Amino acid sequence: MKIREAIKGVRPYQAGKPISEVKRQLGLDDIIKLASNENPYGCSEKVRQAMISAVDSINLYPDASNYELKKALADYLGVKTSMIFCGTGSDLLIRVLCSIFIDKDDEIIMGDISFQRYEDSAKIMGGKVVKIKMKNHRLDVEGMVNAVNDRTKIVWFATPNNPTGTIVKKDELLWALDNIPKDVLVVIDEAYKEYVTDEDYPDTIPLLNKYNNIVILRTFSKAYGLAGLRLGYGIANEEITQYMNSVIGPFDTNLIAQEAGIAALKDEEFLKFIVEKNDEGRKYYYKEFDRLGLNYIESQANFVMVDTGKDDMDVFNKLLRKGVIVRPGSLFDMPGWLRVTVGTMEQCQRFVKSLEEILRGE
Amino acid sequence: MKIREAIKGVRPYQAGKPISEVKRQLGLDDIIKLASNENPYGCSEKVRQAMISAVDSINLYPDASNYELKKALADYLGVKTSMIFCGTGSDLLIRVLCSIFIDKDDEIIMGDISFQRYEDSAKIMGGKVVKIKMKNHRLDVEGMVNAVNDRTKIVWFATPNNPTGTIVKKDELLWALDNIPKDVLVVIDEAYKEYVTDEDYPDTIPLLNKYNNIVILRTFSKAYGLAGLRLGYGIANEEITQYMNSVIGPFDTNLIAQEAGIAALKDEEFLKFIVEKNDEGRKYYYKEFDRLGLNYIESQANFVMVDTGKDDMDVFNKLLRKGVIVRPGSLFDMPGWLRVTVGTMEQCQRFVKSLEEILRGE
Repeated sequence: MKIREAIKGVRPYQAGKPISEVKRQLGLDDIIKLASNENPYGCSEKVRQAMISAVDSINLYPDASNYELKKALADYLGVKTSMIFCGTGSDLLIRVLCSIFIDKDDEIIMGDISFQRYEDSAKIMGGKVVKIKMKNHRLDVEGMVNAVNDRTKIVWFATPNNPTGTIVKKDELLWALDNIPKDVLVVIDEAYKEYVTDEDYPDTIPLLNKYNNIVILRTFSKAYGLAGLRLGYGIANEEITQYMNSVIGPFDTNLIAQEAGIAALKDEEFLKFIVEKNDEGRKYYYKEFDRLGLNYIESQANFVMVDTGKDDMDVFNKLLRKGVIVRPGSLFDMPGWLRVTVGTMEQCQRFVKSLEEILRGE
Repeated sequence: MKIREAIKGVRPYQAGKPISEVKRQLGLDDIIKLASNENPYGCSEKVRQAMISAVDSINLYPDASNYELKKALADYLGVKTSMIFCGTGSDLLIRVLCSIFIDKDDEIIMGDISFQRYEDSAKIMGGKVVKIKMKNHRLDVEGMVNAVNDRTKIVWFATPNNPTGTIVKKDELLWALDNIPKDVLVVIDEAYKEYVTDEDYPDTIPLLNKYNNIVILRTFSKAYGLAGLRLGYGIANEEITQYMNSVIGPFDTNLIAQEAGIAALKDEEFLKFIVEKNDEGRKYYYKEFDRLGLNYIESQANFVMVDTGKDDMDVFNKLLRKGVIVRPGSLFDMPGWLRVTVGTMEQCQRFVKSLEEILRGE
């Protein structure tokens, strides 16, 4: 078959086994998954009711214009509806951005330990990926800006960054925006923004007034607890938004997601609860890692990277046999480390207890 | 901004207004939509229950490998799971196929009155669209095959074809497959296959054993009544399937869709009911159009094209004011015609009554 050259270099996604398979294979029936940064408290009860109501209209196509959802988002964010685009998770939006901006041999710039999907999506379009080495586990914003050249189309700032949990600070971002050419797109991926407590975290929406080359990406998958539903959105100037809406499929956002998104924005209590619980969990991890003498990266997200000082694949497998699924750092080029989601306090305690046993050789 | 040249030619999708907006604007509260070929009977009750159960796990990511859904589809179809890919409706799968096969100036071949999204998706990749004139409202298979040249990457057979409702017959398809070079992809889009009653309709799954260049696309949006959920799938050889799975996002198929798809395949009674009711509705339309002296195209799908002999936009607007939404033929380069979905018998009767009044000048 006459496959495009670029596609030959795209590696298939290595999916983890479903929990049901892991249970069967290891003969376990009590497994906790702290591997995918999912919300351990589910979603808001109001959202749950909205989803169940939406099921009764499932024979109808979703509204192709996302009219009501965009209206709700515009009100919530204080921007015009013509600056919002929606889709099947941020993941789809990342791919669509690449399909609009990346031609063969165009370049993107990202951190060398950042979200894998920026790389995959650029490669599908035949793009080249320039990875700038992290500086103390943080995106090297200066290094990234200095790497911009005539072929650069997109600079990716994941903030908080996945998997390190670190942010791009306000002064760093403003400096970057002032020093990146105006025809290079700056994508600020804020998938984990709701969890941020650091006061140096920039409010990016007002920056859209000054800089025309910004795209802000957000998602309902994390703090809103809707990972299974696939709903992400972006905010940008009207020109970019129009291109996005031309390439995103008219029915990419499913009907249940449209209703759930609207309901989720209204339940501020739920979000507040989630953010507080997450902060408690992060602090618990820090305290316990300190006690165990383990190095870790302070995180502004709902996960923490911790250095086990051992072979992370070995620790990962031993945790698995104790019914605790985490993400081994080797997958992120951080051998020795584990990325662990902040679960409920009970789940966090079980992870720490299991890790401690493994490090003691039990 | 440095947008790809190809994107500049992509037109934004013109979405219809949501029913709620039409109601407000026209002051109507009883509207029937026979415009998008949706299933008027909703979905199976078993599927409904499966969706509601799935809502309780919505904080978790969908299984990236679609393990259980692919297993259910493989059993149902009698093929290997490694020959199946799933995604956000056939719409996404059409786009992914283009992103794998179409480079700048590559060609696709389609009927000149066929599914618009083949054209849109090819253009995003910079492809050229060769449209072959329909023959008596049917795809001109011979003409399409004769148009294949060195730049041809995909030939699109929509069967039943949208919007004409006609099929590619078995002997035509076999002749085409024998005469299209083996390195040109032949996509057989069977979105409406469940509604087919014509015995000349080919069973395409066994053809995968003989022809390596076939992709079959199917959907849960139509006969299964799940348009709002976004679930389509494809069947192809293992090489093509592997490329598809590399480019489709790992979480494109939402968690509720995965569960609904599995439940839908099990409820054969529901599908039988839907297909019978649809056949009754088509025959009712034919009888009434004959009575009114209107030309129409016999359809193997859940919609019928009828020639009003008038300005279709005018008839469309008059129907709208009577609370009946259909699709004007001008959108498909068939001025004068309307595409009307087969609704419940009551809905079909209301459409016919409204049309008759309009044609009488009422």
